[in-house]
Amino acid sequence: MGMIGGGAGAFIGVIHRMAAIMDGEIELVCGALSSDPKKSKDSGRDLNLDPNRVYDSYQEMISKEKELSDDVRMDFVSIVTPNHVHFEPAKLAMENGFHVVLDKPMTFTLAEAKELKQVVEKTGKYFCLTHTYTGYPLVKEARVQVANGKVGNIRKILVTYPQGWLSSFVEASNDNKQASWRTDPSKSGIAGGMGDIGTHAFNLAEYISGLKVSEILADLHIVVEGRKLDDDGAVLLKFENGATGVLIASQIMAGEENNLNIKIYGDKGGVKWYQHDPNSLIFVAPNKPVETWRAGTGYLSEVAKHNTRITAGHPEGYVEAFANHYRNFALCVKAQLAGEQPKKEWLDFPGIEDGVRGMAFIENVIASSTSKEKWTPFNV
Amino acid sequence: MGMIGGGAGAFIGVIHRMAAIMDGEIELVCGALSSDPKKSKDSGRDLNLDPNRVYDSYQEMISKEKELSDDVRMDFVSIVTPNHVHFEPAKLAMENGFHVVLDKPMTFTLAEAKELKQVVEKTGKYFCLTHTYTGYPLVKEARVQVANGKVGNIRKILVTYPQGWLSSFVEASNDNKQASWRTDPSKSGIAGGMGDIGTHAFNLAEYISGLKVSEILADLHIVVEGRKLDDDGAVLLKFENGATGVLIASQIMAGEENNLNIKIYGDKGGVKWYQHDPNSLIFVAPNKPVETWRAGTGYLSEVAKHNTRITAGHPEGYVEAFANHYRNFALCVKAQLAGEQPKKEWLDFPGIEDGVRGMAFIENVIASSTSKEKWTPFNV
Amino acid sequence: MGMIGGGAGAFIGVIHRMAAIMDGEIELVCGALSSDPKKSKDSGRDLNLDPNRVYDSYQEMISKEKELSDDVRMDFVSIVTPNHVHFEPAKLAMENGFHVVLDKPMTFTLAEAKELKQVVEKTGKYFCLTHTYTGYPLVKEARVQVANGKVGNIRKILVTYPQGWLSSFVEASNDNKQASWRTDPSKSGIAGGMGDIGTHAFNLAEYISGLKVSEILADLHIVVEGRKLDDDGAVLLKFENGATGVLIASQIMAGEENNLNIKIYGDKGGVKWYQHDPNSLIFVAPNKPVETWRAGTGYLSEVAKHNTRITAGHPEGYVEAFANHYRNFALCVKAQLAGEQPKKEWLDFPGIEDGVRGMAFIENVIASSTSKEKWTPFNV
Amino acid sequence: MGMIGGGAGAFIGVIHRMAAIMDGEIELVCGALSSDPKKSKDSGRDLNLDPNRVYDSYQEMISKEKELSDDVRMDFVSIVTPNHVHFEPAKLAMENGFHVVLDKPMTFTLAEAKELKQVVEKTGKYFCLTHTYTGYPLVKEARVQVANGKVGNIRKILVTYPQGWLSSFVEASNDNKQASWRTDPSKSGIAGGMGDIGTHAFNLAEYISGLKVSEILADLHIVVEGRKLDDDGAVLLKFENGATGVLIASQIMAGEENNLNIKIYGDKGGVKWYQHDPNSLIFVAPNKPVETWRAGTGYLSEVAKHNTRITAGHPEGYVEAFANHYRNFALCVKAQLAGEQPKKEWLDFPGIEDGVRGMAFIENVIASSTSKEKWTPFNV
Repeated sequence: MGMIGGGAGAFIGVIHRMAAIMDGEIELVCGALSSDPKKSKDSGRDLNLDPNRVYDSYQEMISKEKELSDDVRMDFVSIVTPNHVHFEPAKLAMENGFHVVLDKPMTFTLAEAKELKQVVEKTGKYFCLTHTYTGYPLVKEARVQVANGKVGNIRKILVTYPQGWLSSFVEASNDNKQASWRTDPSKSGIAGGMGDIGTHAFNLAEYISGLKVSEILADLHIVVEGRKLDDDGAVLLKFENGATGVLIASQIMAGEENNLNIKIYGDKGGVKWYQHDPNSLIFVAPNKPVETWRAGTGYLSEVAKHNTRITAGHPEGYVEAFANHYRNFALCVKAQLAGEQPKKEWLDFPGIEDGVRGMAFIENVIASSTSKEKWTPFNV
Repeated sequence: MGMIGGGAGAFIGVIHRMAAIMDGEIELVCGALSSDPKKSKDSGRDLNLDPNRVYDSYQEMISKEKELSDDVRMDFVSIVTPNHVHFEPAKLAMENGFHVVLDKPMTFTLAEAKELKQVVEKTGKYFCLTHTYTGYPLVKEARVQVANGKVGNIRKILVTYPQGWLSSFVEASNDNKQASWRTDPSKSGIAGGMGDIGTHAFNLAEYISGLKVSEILADLHIVVEGRKLDDDGAVLLKFENGATGVLIASQIMAGEENNLNIKIYGDKGGVKWYQHDPNSLIFVAPNKPVETWRAGTGYLSEVAKHNTRITAGHPEGYVEAFANHYRNFALCVKAQLAGEQPKKEWLDFPGIEDGVRGMAFIENVIASSTSKEKWTPFNV
Repeated sequence: MGMIGGGAGAFIGVIHRMAAIMDGEIELVCGALSSDPKKSKDSGRDLNLDPNRVYDSYQEMISKEKELSDDVRMDFVSIVTPNHVHFEPAKLAMENGFHVVLDKPMTFTLAEAKELKQVVEKTGKYFCLTHTYTGYPLVKEARVQVANGKVGNIRKILVTYPQGWLSSFVEASNDNKQASWRTDPSKSGIAGGMGDIGTHAFNLAEYISGLKVSEILADLHIVVEGRKLDDDGAVLLKFENGATGVLIASQIMAGEENNLNIKIYGDKGGVKWYQHDPNSLIFVAPNKPVETWRAGTGYLSEVAKHNTRITAGHPEGYVEAFANHYRNFALCVKAQLAGEQPKKEWLDFPGIEDGVRGMAFIENVIASSTSKEKWTPFNV
Repeated sequence: MGMIGGGAGAFIGVIHRMAAIMDGEIELVCGALSSDPKKSKDSGRDLNLDPNRVYDSYQEMISKEKELSDDVRMDFVSIVTPNHVHFEPAKLAMENGFHVVLDKPMTFTLAEAKELKQVVEKTGKYFCLTHTYTGYPLVKEARVQVANGKVGNIRKILVTYPQGWLSSFVEASNDNKQASWRTDPSKSGIAGGMGDIGTHAFNLAEYISGLKVSEILADLHIVVEGRKLDDDGAVLLKFENGATGVLIASQIMAGEENNLNIKIYGDKGGVKWYQHDPNSLIFVAPNKPVETWRAGTGYLSEVAKHNTRITAGHPEGYVEAFANHYRNFALCVKAQLAGEQPKKEWLDFPGIEDGVRGMAFIENVIASSTSKEKWTPFNV
């Protein structure tokens, strides 16, 4: 694996590296770790990379790695730059024969997303978009159980992503690199919180329910004075089967950490998952005891087991959820290198279609929020 | 106290009686317990009432009790009938000199509510509307702390009232008396779930925050086929100070009990309360440990202490919350009888203004839900 | 009902009164509310008692009430005095034809307890000992399910009663009436915490498990300097079937409230209950989802339903648990007055046998704690 | 790093590898992965090891690696074999110049433990014993806060390690490799559950409290018929400062996973930690709100921060706790290689002293449990 971005000071690059290497399937062999060549070099040294494979730019990395022999060359790139530097390196990598792991949201615009989809289809490369939360084994179990009819026909979906880290004007200072770019339209795109965390909530809802959003009614706000992008919002949802939902994503719920949670109710019962207790999945049903399904147990589906490392009661967390995407992606890549078919459960990582719908989500909620129409169709 | 409604088979009448008598301040002395005179008699016998004071109708009860001497006559009536039999007996009681406790929602229409307000003002009688949840000591503490600025300027209010008991078409059968009248427009009024539980959520939000809703955008649904009134809905809220909110009330979240919960965030932090754990109040703030404030402790406000019976760690529940309203109401009535001023904390029970706003909530959400307008003003 | 003790300033008398009257089955008609006649009178007036039936002493109350006609006379006495004033009034009341409700621990000594048992047997009066916690519906459900074999053959019982209110030398001041008498051997007896809360834990373990303790190994401590009775201790337990257990009761776990909890494991699974969340009962079993059984639901046993007032999701608490004992006791008394047999579930309140075993527990743990023997038989 | 043990089918070897590599500080370069040379080779291939560095025995590995050049040779060995193969390879490795990471319990006997301590002292090698739970950042925070006096003078320590995986006679079958060796005295030593998980609980109590156990009273059981070693037990503890405690460790609490938890009370308050929610630390104190301290926040100590990877709200788990020990160990080793002093917080991993005390714990509890004496001194 080669990494684009993720040099010193980055938040998510470190997570990507831990997630990539922890299962022993993936090795970091090269990087273009910063747009600043010196910083890239320094970061490469910190990571014990071969200095010859720490590049000044992603363009250089892709072209030089391409020249290396099969057994040396990186097999895929991991792109962990801000949103405005997603499309170009991803496209270039795939067009030069490299599989791609890309941080979300996928691109800067929906148009780019659609173009990238064409690149994926044309090149046949594996493409993974790191919507972390669908990597949790009990999120996967929720999807399996919903598909198996455990909650019946879905009627209602509530998904909430509460954060508080932007509840004051932290981007005023240069110290908070994360806040700076994530609230900057030139780097983040047209959406703030809805792009950063709303897309996770949206993806989670569609993933577990197996349903697509068909109409939306968005109400976004810039709560903190001086901010340029939305930092709080609610989106009413209609799904293709007639179910309705509410998506709430906020970065100004002062004091909240990251307790993404989802509740899906059908005519037979409901399923609930909270990121703060990720190894539990709660089922409720009329006139039945509440069930808490636990990670690492023998009664879970094969998919959940495949994405769990330890026996029940040893909590796995965010890095392991992240690592599940990398591991599944790597297993697919290795199978391809070996001329084999990937197993079905390996293909269970977020991909180009999630990315296109995520970008559509961004553009649709921004449009709806400023529209005078109540409900608007979810256009892709 | 005399009771109107609440005969055999009633749900809420039993609660009202327990709540009224448990603190030893109030005695049930008479009743018109059913619109069916025989059932009223039978219920009166079950309750060990003096048969001479079990009446065939509330009209009879009010006129006959009025004739009794001061030391015998009931001091107030408690009205626990379905919504369509709220206005008339409440009006009649007050006009004949009796104070009134009335179950929510206050009346059948907003017009009735406004008229009842005039009756209250004209007669000067005490009037209590039993929005149970504001009776919990930690809900009162939340209000006190919010007023004291603990969460700062309020920006966001989320209130959710999830139930599942109407997730199938239970009103098809005659067995479920509660379901039958609550889903019947001729008894319940123009709203179903929004009237039954949405009003509680609305009242709770305005009570704790101290803010009034100024605009709404409602999206209501009839999810269960054949039902005549809304059983699920979300309402986006704007408050007078610019804060926004989301109110969700549903009776089709299959498997859910009654876990009414509210989260209020300001620029300094947030406060959270869940009816399932009513003796805890959670405060969150940026870069501070989460605080859980507990009922019965010495650090709570005087208001919370006044509404708590037992020392910390002995859980109080729904009946005690209910009883707090009765006790405060009774303390005010007794003070008046004694020619004394009530203490300020005794006046902290829901009253006519809450009732008018609750009925306005019902009419506004129904109107908004069918309107093509996005946001509409909250009209009273 | 007539009350002995429970005048102004008492802690538990207030609870007894609320618990007694809230279900409308019991009326407080007379009292000897304090050993101080003036205080008794004042308290009687506060409680709106007929001044003629507020007595100077329990002896006077029992003799004078006895003279009253059947339809006026109190049916039973409720004794809520400190431990050293339990035996005499209970004995006197029963010998004069009154049923008795008595606060725990039952007597001052085991010898008194055994004598009181003879009084109960001789007089045939109903006798209720208010071990509150077995009044909770889900504690009763636990007992039913254990008896039904849900956890299999019991192997291990852990019961813990953590409190912190005596973590400093509060009895030094005269302000804390509760602390003063509960730490005073002349009023409390030979045990402090083990008598006050250890007996509750012991009773709960025997009640749910249906097993009797057969051997103990106690380790008690006086942690706070100057205190005269144990305020902290652990007791290892052996049960008649070979199961073992650990009972921990402490009043110096600074910051703890009252979270009595019990866990019982058999060869098929375990059951867990916590007083802080009394409306939930947790079942665990190998390779199965965790089940949370909830109060007020339709799937509970008839016993649990009989002891629940409200539908699921409206929390009941400590007063209701207490009230269940009073209600069941009152139903039995009423049946006897009517010449009818009580229903089986009405008889499910703690009685004389629990009291004898509780006093034996106190004497055995004190003896074991000072013995050089490891395990000692549990002698009654 | 070279690994001894941990071949196919091993439980803990996989965890060690993930924990070692995830932070990018450590690379697995060689192994003697099984006592069966063929299995070692196969496992080495699965792990993509250089076949020349997959050895038939640990003796071979140590002698051959020693011959390699500085920049190629492994820096330390990680020993993840059953208990009876701990002492010899650890000793041999250190005597040949390699640092050692060793799974717990440290050795087969206390005598071996003491001898190993001499080896550590003589060779000056770094030695890490993987008591996982002290690797959690909030366990470290608890230690810091206790040391800072937040709970005052410690009076009471409760530590419980509940498991249910051995609640039936699973070792009867050959399928359960873990159960087989852990219940076999020839591999596990004289203790079963007390060695396997009791030592963790003991280590956790001494780590957080900063106190040493001075006397014990143990009561161990073999609950499952046919089993050869203890599977359930309680140990009463006295600490050097006069505090007392209760340690409960059981493998037959059917349905329990692994919810190791500890509660420590001083005269000012208490601290509580549960492995099921490892990113929370709870503080209680008289008449103060309960505080929940959360991982990843800015208000934690530097030690906790150093052992945390992600911002608040992204849960870290068991592997990360494990990895903290490896990372701190590796930082020390690297510092030594660089001729530098390690930072103080890097030295915070369990070491030889923990191992000696752990083995003493095993021998003392076994002795106490069969002794007729009540309290016996904790001898090392």
